[in-house]
Amino acid sequence: MDPLVLYVLDLAEPDPARSMRRADPRGTVLTATDLSATRGDGVFETVVVVDGVPQALEPHLDRFERSARLLDLPVPRHEVWRRAVLAAAAELGALRPRAAIKFVLSRGDEAGDGTPTGWLLGFAPARAADPVTEVDVVLLDRGYRHDVATTSPWLLQGAKTLSYAVNMAALREARRRGADDVVFISSDGFVLEGPSSTVVARIDGVYVTPPVDVGILPGTTQADVFEGLRAEGRRAAIRRLTVPELLRADALWLCSSTRGAAAVRSVDGAPWPVDLDATARMQRHLDERTA
Amino acid sequence: MDPLVLYVLDLAEPDPARSMRRADPRGTVLTATDLSATRGDGVFETVVVVDGVPQALEPHLDRFERSARLLDLPVPRHEVWRRAVLAAAAELGALRPRAAIKFVLSRGDEAGDGTPTGWLLGFAPARAADPVTEVDVVLLDRGYRHDVATTSPWLLQGAKTLSYAVNMAALREARRRGADDVVFISSDGFVLEGPSSTVVARIDGVYVTPPVDVGILPGTTQADVFEGLRAEGRRAAIRRLTVPELLRADALWLCSSTRGAAAVRSVDGAPWPVDLDATARMQRHLDERTA
Repeated sequence: MDPLVLYVLDLAEPDPARSMRRADPRGTVLTATDLSATRGDGVFETVVVVDGVPQALEPHLDRFERSARLLDLPVPRHEVWRRAVLAAAAELGALRPRAAIKFVLSRGDEAGDGTPTGWLLGFAPARAADPVTEVDVVLLDRGYRHDVATTSPWLLQGAKTLSYAVNMAALREARRRGADDVVFISSDGFVLEGPSSTVVARIDGVYVTPPVDVGILPGTTQADVFEGLRAEGRRAAIRRLTVPELLRADALWLCSSTRGAAAVRSVDGAPWPVDLDATARMQRHLDERTA
Repeated sequence: MDPLVLYVLDLAEPDPARSMRRADPRGTVLTATDLSATRGDGVFETVVVVDGVPQALEPHLDRFERSARLLDLPVPRHEVWRRAVLAAAAELGALRPRAAIKFVLSRGDEAGDGTPTGWLLGFAPARAADPVTEVDVVLLDRGYRHDVATTSPWLLQGAKTLSYAVNMAALREARRRGADDVVFISSDGFVLEGPSSTVVARIDGVYVTPPVDVGILPGTTQADVFEGLRAEGRRAAIRRLTVPELLRADALWLCSSTRGAAAVRSVDGAPWPVDLDATARMQRHLDERTA
């Protein structure tokens, strides 16, 4: 990745217009005692920016707030973050037609006064975006039952936290097995999500994604894909999926902000049918979003 | 906490004597793209420093290496980290009779060349150490079966990672319930560990702690406590513990570097007997360590 724009936020400043300061995107901005770095104790979002316009910003802000609430963090003020994302996006628009912004809220500095730390990084992703990306996936145990978000909320399932070491380890395991990505499965056999994506399966002509009550993130890209599918008159449903049901799907996708709708071309080494036409229509719908 | 000494390591430098540089302990040393801050993707250890001498340094270095291997990180060179810890400890000794050093290995900068990031922070803990600390604990579900470290190593159980948001959330849940600390229980009913401590239970006169194969950290402080107990002629055993067995214990402790052996005085709100004499002997043994 190529860091292009960095803003650091002063979250103790009441005036949103005065809470941003620019910083060198490759410079040091965090102390060695920031809880992001020492405990992975914070939340984040990544939005794609096309021609200076952040995509699906409001759903990302909503999810950011949802994650912050799950971690008992101070609820982020949308106007502060929206203003900063829009400013960074405008700058990025002058640099690249396609870029991304990661925005981060950490619990703050362990040696500080309790004020949370906030920053936004605008960057160019490492790989050029391909209009139709295809991925080889493996199914990996997430270790948790499908209901832990309800029974054991301190496990933070469904929050987009900075504690992503397990997600990164799962991706390394996928590469060890010759694949690119992962579909997590609950310990009791329900389909969850990818380490940074939402699963969509087409079963008996219906596009299906699991509900958030199985302890997963609400998918911002999947939501836009479903909107597009419904506008085309296709059926889309949110319901629990077991592994045997997943393996009956005649097409599968992983949806994420940075990659859009990536078609799954193999599962645990077994080739999977790719519907090029449906994938291209999903991508077109995502590309046609105005915000 | 009060940051006192900070070293940043150049882990690409082959000469251990030249890999350390001092930095302002309250200054900014990390980029916004360091994988410690963006993914909690790294490992750490904390050693207590008494009169300039780091306690149980070699077991901590061994565990640091173990954690790094579990995360597929470059294996830390003990001579680099030992040298840095000893230098920081000597400095701390001139400042405080009792302090601590946290040392951290992150996977590096997402926008960098793949070199890991390393640093050491010497600090004074927030609270003065009490010779006998007593804690109220709650039992909380860790969500994982006792065998996930074997079946699903990508879940990183048993590694001391920077992805500690769940541990911090569990401590907040404990405080919500009027307690100070947590004993994690596996989804199938085995006693695991605390968010930053090892559980020791005295059952039928035997001091018992769970084995690392249930997906927990090897306890450096617990190991020293067991050594002391055995030197006194007492029986100590490492074996799996179920919750009903735990609740039969006539005394319980949480062992950690920063707090030593803390006696449990209540479990889920029910008062628990504190053996002041045994606790004082454990602490004395820990205090009498020369390194």
